[in-house]
Amino acid sequence: MTAPLTVEFIAGGQGVWAIDRVVPVLGETLPPAASLSIVPAGQTASEAVAWRLKGTVSNARYSHRSELAELAIRQEGLGRSASRQAVLIPIRKSAAWWALAQDERRAIFEEQSRHIRIGMDYLPGIARRLHHSRDLGEPFDFLTWFEFAPEEEEAFDTMLSRLRETAEWGFVEREVEIRVSRVQ
Amino acid sequence: MTAPLTVEFIAGGQGVWAIDRVVPVLGETLPPAASLSIVPAGQTASEAVAWRLKGTVSNARYSHRSELAELAIRQEGLGRSASRQAVLIPIRKSAAWWALAQDERRAIFEEQSRHIRIGMDYLPGIARRLHHSRDLGEPFDFLTWFEFAPEEEEAFDTMLSRLRETAEWGFVEREVEIRVSRVQ
Repeated sequence: MTAPLTVEFIAGGQGVWAIDRVVPVLGETLPPAASLSIVPAGQTASEAVAWRLKGTVSNARYSHRSELAELAIRQEGLGRSASRQAVLIPIRKSAAWWALAQDERRAIFEEQSRHIRIGMDYLPGIARRLHHSRDLGEPFDFLTWFEFAPEEEEAFDTMLSRLRETAEWGFVEREVEIRVSRVQ
Repeated sequence: MTAPLTVEFIAGGQGVWAIDRVVPVLGETLPPAASLSIVPAGQTASEAVAWRLKGTVSNARYSHRSELAELAIRQEGLGRSASRQAVLIPIRKSAAWWALAQDERRAIFEEQSRHIRIGMDYLPGIARRLHHSRDLGEPFDFLTWFEFAPEEEEAFDTMLSRLRETAEWGFVEREVEIRVSRVQ
């Protein structure tokens, strides 16, 4: 049995990531905090926390085999020593998105918006891990965590701009950008 | 914001459904109990329970627009007064299934196994609701709940047999069948 990994992103006074800034992008933002930590879900934080967001590293929902194969060759994992910068982007999509059929969502996601293709353009520099939150009753649908070396930040910003111009982003109704730096 | 519905199936001494039998199909079965109830997740059961299974009524994962449109025309909802029989079928699929890409899973699910098409053959008699459990850290991946009038039971059994002969079922590694009757 392979249980999917569920983690919590906890913003508070402690953590290996210092929060540089919380950028409101669309809809309600999140409160500021000093630090961010990522822990397996269910671990109780004894200290006061500013906010906590939970997500599951689940199966691929849109990627075809050819795309997963290309990603597997090109991408690198989290935790590289050069990855001193990271960004957490919680996103919630609209009811209209979730009412779409699988073929309609796939067509908007990739054939029209090139979501996978755009991410591929920034590999292996920008490493990422997607966490699904919607089924957990969380305020966001997805938590995407990106890690990269400081010199990749401009490329990361360009990637974000390209994604936000897509048709898919027309279905985003809440988005926050949490920029962090590794302190340990 | 449309929060997906998360429910718990609770087997114990009370409930509007009497458990007629728990049928082990594949892998570890579930303990017997007198009754089954379906409650919104998070409600605390004060009485002792035999087992509880949680699942979320999430978005469609494989259905195309044409299929959803046909289902919308032909299917009826839960809670019909004639639906005095019901069956809960918790299923867990293998790691091999979850490692497949979206296009591979869809091809096995529908083009090869005709999962949607087989279910369609039994509408509107057999009403169903699918609950996703895998991302919740549950022991099963899916909980499917079927409701029908007693005279539909033979048709239901035929449907189950057809589904279990498919290529998709080759990926099922745990399955239990809980047959219940409405008592209230």
